[in-house]
Order: sequence, then C-alpha cells, then structure tokens
Amino acid sequence: MTDGVEIERKFLVEQLPDGLDGYLSREIEQGYLAITDEVEVRLRRYGDQSFLTVKSSGDESRIEEEIEIDEDRFAVLWPLTGDRRIQKRRYAIPIDGGLTIELDVYHARLSGLLTAEVEFGSAADADGFTPPPWFGREVTDDSRYKNKRLATDGLPS
Amino acid sequence: MTDGVEIERKFLVEQLPDGLDGYLSREIEQGYLAITDEVEVRLRRYGDQSFLTVKSSGDESRIEEEIEIDEDRFAVLWPLTGDRRIQKRRYAIPIDGGLTIELDVYHARLSGLLTAEVEFGSAADADGFTPPPWFGREVTDDSRYKNKRLATDGLPS
Repeated sequence: MTDGVEIERKFLVEQLPDGLDGYLSREIEQGYLAITDEVEVRLRRYGDQSFLTVKSSGDESRIEEEIEIDEDRFAVLWPLTGDRRIQKRRYAIPIDGGLTIELDVYHARLSGLLTAEVEFGSAADADGFTPPPWFGREVTDDSRYKNKRLATDGLPS
Repeated sequence: MTDGVEIERKFLVEQLPDGLDGYLSREIEQGYLAITDEVEVRLRRYGDQSFLTVKSSGDESRIEEEIEIDEDRFAVLWPLTGDRRIQKRRYAIPIDGGLTIELDVYHARLSGLLTAEVEFGSAADADGFTPPPWFGREVTDDSRYKNKRLATDGLPS
C-alpha cells in the first residue's frame, strides 16, 4: 500500500463457499526470516514472483512494506527461514463495496485450516463490515492465527 | 556479492593512519529492523542510496543479501529500527593484492571507536593477510564488536 498502513479483519472459515473454482487463486509459499516483538520479516513466492516483506507487529493497524526480489535472491535467502514456513492456496473473492475476501486454504502440516481476510481503507469501514454467512469466528485479535504464529507453532489446539 | 557469501576479518584501530582525507569516504547511518539468533535485518543509508540487508548470524563466513530500496520505503521502515542505530564515517583504503580496508570512525554514543574490516575472496586469502602496523587487536571473533551488538549494547566496556 502506498502509505504503508493497512487495516484487516480475519475470520475462520468452517465451510468453503460454492463456486470456488470460479475465482482467481494462486499457491503461496512463505517463510519467516525473523520474528521479533517489534517486526516480522517474511519471504513469499507466488507464481514467478518473489517478495521480501517487513511488517510491524501489531493487530489491526500496522506498517507493511513489500519489496519485490529476484529469484536468485529468493534462493539464497530461503534457507534462512528454517522450518518457519507456510504453504497455502489463496482465493480472491470480490464482494460489494469494492472489497475482496482473501480466502486461504492451508496445506502440509496446517492442512484443514481455512481463514478469510478482508482489508479496509479505514477503521470505520472495518467496523461497519458485515461478514458473509460462510464466515466463522473472527480471529483478528487471536494471535495464534497470525501467519507467523502458524509458521512457528502450527495449528492452534 | 554474487554468491551471497563473504569472508571478512575485523580489527580495532588505535590510531588513524596518515593522509585519511585523501581517501574516499561517506557517512553511513544504519539501524536494525530485527536481530535474532539466526539472522539480522538491517537498514542502511549512505548518501542518496538506501538498502535493506539480510545477513545470517555467523562469524567469518555468512550469507549476505543487500537490496536497494527507495527513499519512501526507507522513511516508512526506519522508525521500526527503534534505538538500534549506528552512525559512522567509512573510509575506503586500497592496499596491495586488490584488497580494500574499510575504516569505520563511529559517531554519537559510539564516539571514539575505530574499526577496520577487510573482505577476502577465499579463506586462504583471509588466513594469509598481514595487517598493517596501524591495526590493533583483531576482533573478528569478538561478538561485542559486531555492528548489531554495538547498536544494541553500545561500546564494549
């Protein structure tokens, strides 16, 4: 984002919506170079694009800068993510109000986990959002469902 | 570096060499986004160039990837370095064998500290290096003189 600040809400999904194959989707592979109390530094690859992302640790509002890197850099840095890694397929589902649901279907040791995120332009928009019926419990403030926690600690019990 | 691996030796400097003003130098400002047991992620600015660097934590041999970023990104990310920051002037002093001494004169709360680093193409070259007379004690393996330690802990006592 241009101003480096995003506001997101995140929900569990108990049941996949109908017609999922009709939406754009892509496989995402991501690993964490560093996770501290203040920031997380992440590598992510989707398709033939690779990124290094720096995020401040926070809840709804936070700094996020995504820097595109080439495949050679990705290959050098990837081993530094150790076993702090996640694989998922992300579906982009457009909804009213110019919003997009990002539905994540996790693989590997996180198999079975489904989450949905929506990003908003303002706190007021975030507060006014009505989740569709197929959304489950909200986990925006449940740190166990942050990708960095999923990558390090696995599925919440 | 193209292969992402570097071999360096680092020394204290008790007395500055003569003719320092005749060498190229530049002010460096750097801050640490994240420091873990495995990696460090650093922002650095010299002149009008800014970089984000990922290094593996190690001694002589390590992974290092330096990614140029634009001034806007630097400005967004810099506050995330907190007080883990260093300011220094770096002089580039060419010596025999195609080598370059990087002499660092620290400022601010590290004022008085002088270090010199030399980077080598092989472990054999590193082992065969004869320090000039103005070099002091070698601190390659003294972790207190790593920039990340200086940034977080200040001058070694």
